[in-house]
Amino acid sequence: MLTFVGLGLYDERSVTVAGRDAIRAADRVVAEFYTSKLAGATVTDLESYHDTDIEVRDRAGVEQGPDDVLADATDRDVVFLTAGDTMISTTHVDLRLRAHERDIETRVIHGTTAQSAASSLTGLQNYRFGKATTLPFERSHGGTGVPGSVVETLDANRERGLHTLVFLDIDAANDDYMRADHAAALLADADEDCLGVVVARAGSPSPVVRADSLSTLATESYGEPLHLLVVPGTLHHIERDALAALGDAPRELLDAASK
Amino acid sequence: MLTFVGLGLYDERSVTVAGRDAIRAADRVVAEFYTSKLAGATVTDLESYHDTDIEVRDRAGVEQGPDDVLADATDRDVVFLTAGDTMISTTHVDLRLRAHERDIETRVIHGTTAQSAASSLTGLQNYRFGKATTLPFERSHGGTGVPGSVVETLDANRERGLHTLVFLDIDAANDDYMRADHAAALLADADEDCLGVVVARAGSPSPVVRADSLSTLATESYGEPLHLLVVPGTLHHIERDALAALGDAPRELLDAASK
Repeated sequence: MLTFVGLGLYDERSVTVAGRDAIRAADRVVAEFYTSKLAGATVTDLESYHDTDIEVRDRAGVEQGPDDVLADATDRDVVFLTAGDTMISTTHVDLRLRAHERDIETRVIHGTTAQSAASSLTGLQNYRFGKATTLPFERSHGGTGVPGSVVETLDANRERGLHTLVFLDIDAANDDYMRADHAAALLADADEDCLGVVVARAGSPSPVVRADSLSTLATESYGEPLHLLVVPGTLHHIERDALAALGDAPRELLDAASK
Repeated sequence: MLTFVGLGLYDERSVTVAGRDAIRAADRVVAEFYTSKLAGATVTDLESYHDTDIEVRDRAGVEQGPDDVLADATDRDVVFLTAGDTMISTTHVDLRLRAHERDIETRVIHGTTAQSAASSLTGLQNYRFGKATTLPFERSHGGTGVPGSVVETLDANRERGLHTLVFLDIDAANDDYMRADHAAALLADADEDCLGVVVARAGSPSPVVRADSLSTLATESYGEPLHLLVVPGTLHHIERDALAALGDAPRELLDAASK
């Protein structure tokens, strides 16, 4: 059996009870932290909390060399850990399909996600979000500024009055995580007065929500990663009230974005 | 302190460890199950698992009569429980803002969501979903068939090649939950050959994923609720492989929906 467990958003206590029980019952525990990471717990913290050894794999170790994991899962209980929810990356889906081809039973134990947290922390309604996008470091896409695909997603959502969740680039190999002030500065180049909402450390005991114009957000700092940015579409009145109360947003910006 | 805790998707073990700890440390625990429910645990199961009393409120008890809860939260630790993630409904955001107005500290402990599970169970990539929608019972919207707003959301997402998550109506007062075969039949009226993906009992130990034409899905049954339906947009090859392997989808339908 190969069980995929999402560790949730922040630290060793962000996993579900069902996920914790699966980890503790496993014969072998493998993890990857290159698609995302837990900002509030090290691998040692996780090992100590769950009283188990955890083998951390890099991208090559998951994508090219999973044969030993699959072989083991034919007759033992192997757990594969990821931060956030599991199966978010095609890497994980691919591993699950390889197991399926070998008639290995698979199971998914879900984790909490940044996508859901961005909605619940800000008061922006989850069914009013359009397609999400990821803003890459300029060095990652080899261009300058904001890639056309990101602009297109923002524009297409805005046209329908929908919010856009902007994931910020993760460069796990260099332990570098894009900050929201940097992201806001990149996006402000196109529209400095546009309303943005920063969410920092979702799922932690000290999350930050801050709503203001992109150009103002670019001048502030929000502490440790992980950060996200939401570019709201048309605001309903409860969303407007939430961004004012929870994100200290200026009223004139909120009024401009409201129906 | 007023702490909002999402109980997650299925039963008493779907909550995060952090959420469980908050429930156990609380002076008072209040819950609502009219926006969603746990299919795998009763209130008694939750009370027994957490060794605490839980006061269940109906809609009026949350929306019109939360004053006693707020008064209590000024100097005691009150926990407010919901199925899935918390703050998904405007009801919860409104309660949080009322607490905020009274200078009561609030905290959010996230839960796993159907939205994320629909993506991770099917292999459909989360960043390829557009706006989600809810298909109501015909008696709820007082019309026949599929409301125009649902059709518009499906069409607008499809035009951009995006998947649509269709939440199915919940009539908590009558303990009635729309089944996916019923939903597929409603949607098949417009396009019977359209590919659909049923997700039943996400987060449970026995989830079902089934992908086929809407007209075929309408003839099958998927067991106990809760059910969801996804109408995929354009499929990437890994998504196509996942729907074939995990949802037993016919190849010709998948090829028609692929790039």
